[in-house]
Parts: sequence; C-alpha cells; structure tokens
Amino acid sequence: MIFLNFKAYREGFGKRALELAKIAENVSERSGTYIAVAVNFLDLPIVAKEVKIDVFAQHIDAVDFGAFTGAVNAEMIKEYGAKGSLINHSEKRMKLADIDFCVSKLRELKMISIVCTNNVSTTKAVSALRPSFVAVEPPELIGSGIAVSKAEPEVVERAVKVAKEVCEEVRVLCGAGITTHEDYVRALELGAEGVLLASGVVKAKDQKKALEELVGLC
Amino acid sequence: MIFLNFKAYREGFGKRALELAKIAENVSERSGTYIAVAVNFLDLPIVAKEVKIDVFAQHIDAVDFGAFTGAVNAEMIKEYGAKGSLINHSEKRMKLADIDFCVSKLRELKMISIVCTNNVSTTKAVSALRPSFVAVEPPELIGSGIAVSKAEPEVVERAVKVAKEVCEEVRVLCGAGITTHEDYVRALELGAEGVLLASGVVKAKDQKKALEELVGLC
Amino acid sequence: MIFLNFKAYREGFGKRALELAKIAENVSERSGTYIAVAVNFLDLPIVAKEVKIDVFAQHIDAVDFGAFTGAVNAEMIKEYGAKGSLINHSEKRMKLADIDFCVSKLRELKMISIVCTNNVSTTKAVSALRPSFVAVEPPELIGSGIAVSKAEPEVVERAVKVAKEVCEEVRVLCGAGITTHEDYVRALELGAEGVLLASGVVKAKDQKKALEELVGLC
Amino acid sequence: MIFLNFKAYREGFGKRALELAKIAENVSERSGTYIAVAVNFLDLPIVAKEVKIDVFAQHIDAVDFGAFTGAVNAEMIKEYGAKGSLINHSEKRMKLADIDFCVSKLRELKMISIVCTNNVSTTKAVSALRPSFVAVEPPELIGSGIAVSKAEPEVVERAVKVAKEVCEEVRVLCGAGITTHEDYVRALELGAEGVLLASGVVKAKDQKKALEELVGLC
Repeated sequence: MIFLNFKAYREGFGKRALELAKIAENVSERSGTYIAVAVNFLDLPIVAKEVKIDVFAQHIDAVDFGAFTGAVNAEMIKEYGAKGSLINHSEKRMKLADIDFCVSKLRELKMISIVCTNNVSTTKAVSALRPSFVAVEPPELIGSGIAVSKAEPEVVERAVKVAKEVCEEVRVLCGAGITTHEDYVRALELGAEGVLLASGVVKAKDQKKALEELVGLC
Repeated sequence: MIFLNFKAYREGFGKRALELAKIAENVSERSGTYIAVAVNFLDLPIVAKEVKIDVFAQHIDAVDFGAFTGAVNAEMIKEYGAKGSLINHSEKRMKLADIDFCVSKLRELKMISIVCTNNVSTTKAVSALRPSFVAVEPPELIGSGIAVSKAEPEVVERAVKVAKEVCEEVRVLCGAGITTHEDYVRALELGAEGVLLASGVVKAKDQKKALEELVGLC
Repeated sequence: MIFLNFKAYREGFGKRALELAKIAENVSERSGTYIAVAVNFLDLPIVAKEVKIDVFAQHIDAVDFGAFTGAVNAEMIKEYGAKGSLINHSEKRMKLADIDFCVSKLRELKMISIVCTNNVSTTKAVSALRPSFVAVEPPELIGSGIAVSKAEPEVVERAVKVAKEVCEEVRVLCGAGITTHEDYVRALELGAEGVLLASGVVKAKDQKKALEELVGLC
Repeated sequence: MIFLNFKAYREGFGKRALELAKIAENVSERSGTYIAVAVNFLDLPIVAKEVKIDVFAQHIDAVDFGAFTGAVNAEMIKEYGAKGSLINHSEKRMKLADIDFCVSKLRELKMISIVCTNNVSTTKAVSALRPSFVAVEPPELIGSGIAVSKAEPEVVERAVKVAKEVCEEVRVLCGAGITTHEDYVRALELGAEGVLLASGVVKAKDQKKALEELVGLC
C-alpha cells in the first residue's frame, strides 16, 4: 500500500494535484498496487470526484459542526468524498485529546484514520486509540531521501510489534525518506503494510516515472 | 458592506453553503448592498465558481508553498477564485508575525485581507499592518445577539478613529451580535464601513428573510 | 495518595503557596497519608526547600537546555528540588510527541511523571509511554464539585483496567470534582492509587479543614 | 541599555544564572551602563533578591489568577521582584490579543514590557499597544553572530521611525546577532535605546570579558 502525501507542494496543488492523482490512479491500475493520495482541502472535492483511487485529507480539526471559523472536520471531508484523513502529521502535530477525538470520529463515520508518529513509544500510544493505520516517521529522516526502512529498520520492526501488542487490527505504515522500490519492499519485509511518502514522488522531476519505479513497474 | 461568515455551521456547509451563497447573491442584487461570504475551504472552489458575489476563505496559514502538510495559503485560495480571507478570527487566533505575513502576502496578490480584532488597541495595532479591513469584535458579544454597535458603540467609534490615525486606507467593520437592520445602520453611523456577522443569518430559521431584514428589504 | 494542584490560584501562590504546602505537610504527618503539592514555577524553589513532602511542577516544556526563551525543562525543576511534574493538564494540553519527550526525560532523571488524560482511551494511550502515574479527569467534571468517582465510577474502573493492560507499573489517579473523604475513599475502592485535586482544597474557605476532611482526620 | 536574555541556556541557569547576574551587576556598576537580565522563572526569585540590577522574566502568560495550571502571570513575577518581562520572543511567539493583554497588565502594574518583533511592520503594530520597549530582531540573524545593526541597519532606523510615529514614548531596542561594542554603539547611532542579546554573552567562553567588551570596558 502506498499513501502519497501531496503536502502544500506547488507540484501537488491545483491542476497539478489532479494530474498527479490521475498518474497515481494509472500506476495503481497497471501495477495492482493500492495507491491513495492525501490532498489539500481545496483540491479534495475535485480530486475525489475525478479519480477512482482513495482520496484522503491531510488533516482534520477536532471539532463537530458549529462556531469554529476556519475548521474542517471529519463529516465535512466525508461529504466531499474523502476516504479518511492523515492525523498528527509531523508538520501538523496535534494534542493527544484531539488525536483521540479525530480517530474516534473517523471510526464512527466508517472512515480511515492514518495517525503519524515520531518513534516507537508514540506508535504504541497511538495504537491504543485503535486507528486504522499508524505511520511511523522518524522526524530526522523526513524529506531526507534516506529511507527509514534502510537507516533504522529496527524502528519499523519494533513499531509493528508494539502496535500489534496493543491493538491487533492496527496496521503500520512507514514513512520518512522512502524513494525507491527497494525502500518500499524493505518496508514490507519489516512488517509494514505500506509506506507514506511525499517528496520522493511529488517533487520528482518525472512524477510518473518516480511512482512507477516505486511500485516496481520499471 | 456585509460580510457573512459561514463558520463551520452545518447550516452553512456543503449544499447549504451554496444555497446560502445564492441567497446572499440574490439579496445583494435586489438591495444594491455589497454582500460577500466567507466559506469553508472545501466549499470554496464550488461556491466561488457558482456565484458572482465575492467569496472569502475563513482563514489562511502563514506559509508559502512547500512541506506544510494540511496548510492552505493565500496563493491557493486565489487559484480557486477567492477574493481574500478572514485572518485572526476569534475562533482561529494567530500569532502577530503570522498575521503580518498573511496581510502582506494578500496585499502582494492584490487580494483583500479582513483581520479580526478583539478591542480598540489591537485594532490600532493591526491597522499598522495595512490590511484592507479590520473587523472589531468584542469577544463577549460574539454569538450573543447583542450588537456591538448598540451595546458598546464607543468601541466602534474609537476603533474607526485609531485605525484611520495609523493608516488612512484601512476600513473598519464591526462584528459581534449584529442581527437587525437597525444594528447594521447603527454600525454605519458609527463610522464602520460595514458588518461581519455569522449566526444572526446562518443560524436563522429563515436565512433569506434574516438577510433581507438585515439589508432593510423587508 | 493525594496530589494537590495549586494551579494559578491566588490562594495557592506566593506566601500562601508556602502556607498551604506547610498545611499539607502537617496533615500528611498527622494522617499518615501521602500528600504532595504541585506549585507554580516561581514558588517551587522556596516550597521545595521548606517542606518535607514531595513538591511537583505543574508543567514542563519538552525541550533540553538551549535557545528556548521562557521554557522550563525537567532538569531545571530537578535542580530546584522538584520530585516530578504534572504533564498535559487539561489547562495545559500538550502534543503527543511532547508528552512522550517529557515522560522519557523524567524517567531518565529518576523523577515522577503524572500525565493527565481526559478519558479511558487517552489513558490507555498514555500508559503506553510508561509514565509513573496517569491522572484521568473527565473535563466536564473539573472544578464542578461533582466527583468523578461518584458521577462516573466506570471511567475510573476502566481507566485502571486499560492502564494495567498496557503497562503493569502505571498507577492511576483520578481527578475532577474530588472534595470529600467519601470521594477519596470511593476512588481508592475503584482501583485508583489516589486523587489529584485543586479547587476542593485550594479554594476552600478553610484550606486546612478541607484537607483534614479529605484524608478523614475529622 | 543592555538587556541580557539568559534563555534556557545551561550557562545561564541555576547557580550560573546568579553568577552571571552578579557579573552583569558588576559590569553595570563599573561602566555606568544600564544592564538588566531576563532569567528563567525558577531562577527569578533568588536572582531578583540577590542583585541590584533590574531582573525580568522571559515570558508571561496572558491570564489573571485562576484555574490556569502551569501559568505564570504579571502579578506573580512582580511579587517576586521582577521589574517586567519580555513578551513575544521569537522562541515564544504569542497571539496578538495575548500580547495586548500582557502589555496592558504590565502597564497597570507599573512594570516594564519589552515586546519582541520580527520586522518593521510588526514593530509598528506593537508600538500601537504602547509597550515600554519594542525589541526588533530579524529572525534570520538571531544567534547568528551577525549584528542586525551592521547587516540590516535600515531595519533598525525604520523600526525607530515607525515606532515613534505611532507612539512617542515607545523605545526601540535592537537584537539579533549583537556581540561587540561596535555593534552596540552602531545600534545606538541608528536610534535604538539599547540592545537585547543572549548567546553573544551567555554562551561566551568568558562571560565577564564578553560583557566588558560589549560595554566598552576593555
């Protein structure tokens, strides 16, 4: 499984968000690999309508409907076709009570929650909240091009182990520095269900080729 | 001038956002009053496309394009047709340096900035940043149904005075508790260019009637 | 065990912090009950020097020594005689990664961590970080005078159960609304090791009597 | 005027805070230069008691007395002998409404407020709040060893100009990268009343010598 985070990259926004989502859809179909995309709030409605792959939000706020100017909640992204949301990304860290709120709310709505964590112990903690996925991303490797599955394989292995101990159903993704097919395969070998990545594909000179390479199509 | 903040109210989201924006458009045309709407990020693309009145975001983040998962910036809302954004709403307070960043960025992009403030002294401070508008909203009156223009007219008057002292071009709106045509007229008499309101219309049993009443159509 | 949080109450600051800490020391000695106090940063050095009971900080920042203007870290409070710190109090909620940082740092320094949580699932999550204590405080009962051990006994019982499942050594405190000896005894019966309270004693007309009543001295 | 921010540097905490404050007192006496120190909350009570120079907090929270666990307010630091506080330091940025709250509160208490800003426009904005001092510190120069008075003299000049325009009584300090006597003198020539610095002295191999050099004693 591959989750592609478009972040606020210019190369993954607006028309280019739709183009990249179409590329992801195409590569997914040809390779048989599950690929989902996490897009900007503004792009979400159109991307969710135009592609068949799963579309995620990059963040949601821990609120219900109400007097919350500027907030986007789980119900809202659902209404526009999102399958779920990233939560607590390292660039959008949240308070524990708010992570809990969002994971619970997404579960109630039968949506997918992907909670990002920075190490093994927070992975264990988050697993207790029973999210769909925990994505462990050592902060020092994010955007580094050095894959966590290569540089710190024991982090991935231990994250998988502690997550399962606390909650059998939780699936672990690994992020940070994933770029090549080898990184991806290595992540799966270490027990991860898939990878969460961003710059390796979104900022690639040739996004399509980068994604094809990642899934092993070339 | 009337700026209608849809907040994260269920009555101002999704299909109902579009419906309410159409009502605003209709009432604006019939009354000759400038009415603009500030909508959810998810609703912004479709609302901006479907109505002729100005559409604003309720918030923007103080970032450029880049590795900012979950962020929405000024360039992004512009690309989807927004005229500008609310900034520093009492439900989304920002750091001073970030307010400055957003006001400057919107000015560069020839967009409209509406910075919310809580009293006379912060109105003066914000005016120094040269936003398009400052919207003064005493927090104790927000959502109260007690109009600031009635309960604390001196706040509006003084806000207008200090804003102009610091920056001639800044225009002052008044918010908090505005519901009736009388409140609106009173605000204009006190020197405000218009009002920023939310629950008085969005949560009204009959939104259209509430808006018509506000502009003096009935 | 009783942990008394002085908050930023005037009745628990400065000279009155020292007086109240002396009262706590006296009641602890006479009753044989463990009583500790969590005091303001400014009061901590003098209180820790003047009383024999354990003194805690009310919060620490998730930083090491360095360029962190305004921050107080675990090493610092230790140097001034603190036994540990409250973490993630409902009035000072923290990001998950920061809770993890503080719990780990306090453990390294052989200090006591008391992490506050708002419900059963966050109690389980925090237990995975292996703090000394988790203090579960349903937010709706804080400062209410309605004891969690009475109003929502199942929250306390389940919190104890899930905490132990994840980490045998973690001890559970219960907070929110505790005022009487009966509330305290009830908390212990439900499996809690003790209580965390504030207004029930600090804001009491007669602080000494309130504390004596709490431990069952009168 | 020299304001020395000890930050959370190990070299400016605990015993070393007191030693460095004594050095500052000694250099101030010998040179006739006003030198004040901004110390950690935990150090503040003892330092304020032991030295005759002005002692400041590095931050205060925008609250009154009450249920604010972990907070330190203006009244509290006053009770322990502080002369005032830094506000909105770049390492502790605050919301605009909170800056306003703290400046007003310190003024009421006849204490000194030093509000840090990042550029000319925020300096103008803050001046509207009528603090005692605004300390302009371009973020890119903080801790750089490259003095703002040298690298961006126009920032200091314009900051002084706009501050005075908005509020005659406001005095401007300049920070960021100040290390040498030359930097200091240059700052005064540009219209600043003094400098705010940290690492240049606190992290110096020989703190006393660094401070003597700064004031021109050697």
